[in-house]
Amino acid sequence: MDPEYISGLLDKVRAEKPLVHHITNYVTVNDCANITICAGASPVMAHHPDDAEEMAAVAGALVLNIGTLSPELVDAMLIAGKRANEAGVPVILDPVGAGATKIRTESTFKILKEVEISVIKGNAGEISVIAGTGGVVRGVDSGGSAGEPLEAARACSDLTGAAVFMTGQDDILTDGRRSYLVSNGHPMMGSLSGTGCMAASLCGSFAAAGDELLLSSLAAAVIFGISGEIAGSSCKGPYSFRNELFDTLFRIKRETIERYADFRMI
Amino acid sequence: MDPEYISGLLDKVRAEKPLVHHITNYVTVNDCANITICAGASPVMAHHPDDAEEMAAVAGALVLNIGTLSPELVDAMLIAGKRANEAGVPVILDPVGAGATKIRTESTFKILKEVEISVIKGNAGEISVIAGTGGVVRGVDSGGSAGEPLEAARACSDLTGAAVFMTGQDDILTDGRRSYLVSNGHPMMGSLSGTGCMAASLCGSFAAAGDELLLSSLAAAVIFGISGEIAGSSCKGPYSFRNELFDTLFRIKRETIERYADFRMI
Amino acid sequence: MDPEYISGLLDKVRAEKPLVHHITNYVTVNDCANITICAGASPVMAHHPDDAEEMAAVAGALVLNIGTLSPELVDAMLIAGKRANEAGVPVILDPVGAGATKIRTESTFKILKEVEISVIKGNAGEISVIAGTGGVVRGVDSGGSAGEPLEAARACSDLTGAAVFMTGQDDILTDGRRSYLVSNGHPMMGSLSGTGCMAASLCGSFAAAGDELLLSSLAAAVIFGISGEIAGSSCKGPYSFRNELFDTLFRIKRETIERYADFRMI
Repeated sequence: MDPEYISGLLDKVRAEKPLVHHITNYVTVNDCANITICAGASPVMAHHPDDAEEMAAVAGALVLNIGTLSPELVDAMLIAGKRANEAGVPVILDPVGAGATKIRTESTFKILKEVEISVIKGNAGEISVIAGTGGVVRGVDSGGSAGEPLEAARACSDLTGAAVFMTGQDDILTDGRRSYLVSNGHPMMGSLSGTGCMAASLCGSFAAAGDELLLSSLAAAVIFGISGEIAGSSCKGPYSFRNELFDTLFRIKRETIERYADFRMI
Repeated sequence: MDPEYISGLLDKVRAEKPLVHHITNYVTVNDCANITICAGASPVMAHHPDDAEEMAAVAGALVLNIGTLSPELVDAMLIAGKRANEAGVPVILDPVGAGATKIRTESTFKILKEVEISVIKGNAGEISVIAGTGGVVRGVDSGGSAGEPLEAARACSDLTGAAVFMTGQDDILTDGRRSYLVSNGHPMMGSLSGTGCMAASLCGSFAAAGDELLLSSLAAAVIFGISGEIAGSSCKGPYSFRNELFDTLFRIKRETIERYADFRMI
Repeated sequence: MDPEYISGLLDKVRAEKPLVHHITNYVTVNDCANITICAGASPVMAHHPDDAEEMAAVAGALVLNIGTLSPELVDAMLIAGKRANEAGVPVILDPVGAGATKIRTESTFKILKEVEISVIKGNAGEISVIAGTGGVVRGVDSGGSAGEPLEAARACSDLTGAAVFMTGQDDILTDGRRSYLVSNGHPMMGSLSGTGCMAASLCGSFAAAGDELLLSSLAAAVIFGISGEIAGSSCKGPYSFRNELFDTLFRIKRETIERYADFRMI
């Protein structure tokens, strides 16, 4: 894996403009749609079961995010997820707030049981809750994992069969066998609502164009992190940061990615 | 029709501040509210049947957008639409994704059957699906019309009795008898989620102040297009474009409209 | 009460990062989440009854906003509100559009009857409707109160037992016994959708850290107003205003607050 792979995958997303279907929360949904466009893909949001099932079958990827869940919405996720599985469409799960309330934890496990998830993107608390290694989640923020983050990520991958993208100061990505640490990113990403959701949208965008889910998720982490670093270097607060983040990703070039990519196998 | 009519209609919106009631999607709803304010009108969003019915009766216009539809939401649209019809309130329909899934197509025709729609705002694919001339819609993006766009727009107007505003590189507006081509606009409008929805909100804002639905929709297309051109000339990406788009529309002056308006009868 | 109290309370929010649980509308929810972060608190949105009840019990404050209400959503507000009451968590109510439609007015009174509300944040029309002094509400905008605003605010507080934060060109805050007039603010706050909702989110953020609800709401009004003034002094329209508003609040310093705070007892 080298940075050229990552920039090549971005070129592929921009050329193919894959449809990325989201069933997501109403808090950050607009930023999810726009970050998908900035990556070169085409977002669609459809949450009613009939609509979601039909969209999932023709999408390049399906992103499930439980940030503002209800049992009906989780049912729609199950229907769309199963249809995506049948159609060979990769499914990204963002288990927002798993561990914070009973319904969020149970819904996460229900989705993981009934749908074959390709990539789980979560913070250390959420991933550790899935892994059963002891995670703390307060609202939708991570309180951290009880043990070593990499061990939790690996355990989560082992249990679910999914590639795992654990966000944090450094991101950890693993498919259980191979693991990467991504040092790209900026502290301002923690001061803007929905950067985690956006990362999942990017996982979907790149999964639709890639053929290896660990590597396409790594590409998402690196490109989003670099965009964050560039945006963070000149912003005055969360909203100027957001403007720069989206605009930077939209026009990011191969040479920028290859120059700033900062990841390694661990 | 001359540019002075358009700038005069904007003055009227700003003076009257008409209430524009939306039943719309949760992806772009915030931008719809704010673009309505930028035009000088007053947005309100109310989707529960009782709330929607009461709001529709006192509004200056009603905007229906099926971007994230459900059967319950479509029912609310029917109730509010019928009440708007009774009260003489113009109804704008944005058939987002008609043609992409069965429920979106069926819901569009159901609304068109039960509610008298004043203006249909859609992309070439959506308008052609309604016209029955063969349109392609992928997610919520147009894959184009099978035949000539103007013919599809005219056929859509003939079938529905509505004025039709077909968005594209050039916009086409027609009421079946008279047709206009609007060349204002900027490619960046295609790189920001929800510009189509915003155009429908502007149709509502201007319909509430105008007395001819084709001309008020033309005013919306021209003023939005000019704002896009100005914003696009200085932006770095979708979010700086959005900032400029809204701020430009908010403070646009008569002379700017009259100088840059670029439309003709076809 | 002096400005040092206000800046001290902001420091406390930033140090404690209280969880502020929202059950709110889908129009302005993203700005509500981000303004909460900009104040130093941690937002969470959860609207399903089970999720909302569990979140409310562990939150530092609960914000209820009926901007896009449905009977189901109001039921969730009642459940979460009662749980918050049991747990001693302050509850902020934003009765968006009370007086504009029957369901909004009735829902407001239902919530006030079943939940002990700590702070009511509304415009003059909404507060006067609750007070029964004769208010006018058009869509979600205030048409003003029939009588003297301060009298309406006091009557609203007397009737409900809540501290009242009435927004307007000057804000009025009262707990029935003590009353304050806040002159901070900027006209651009009226040209951006959701500034009222954001004010309620800030009331929640400060209520979670303060021990007197009138004073924590006053702190919210003053800090938000100062941020608006600074943002308004350099903006070109609603979206550059929004960017500056959020960024200014995010980095506001003690000395800025103490220098610009403009309020007095009335």
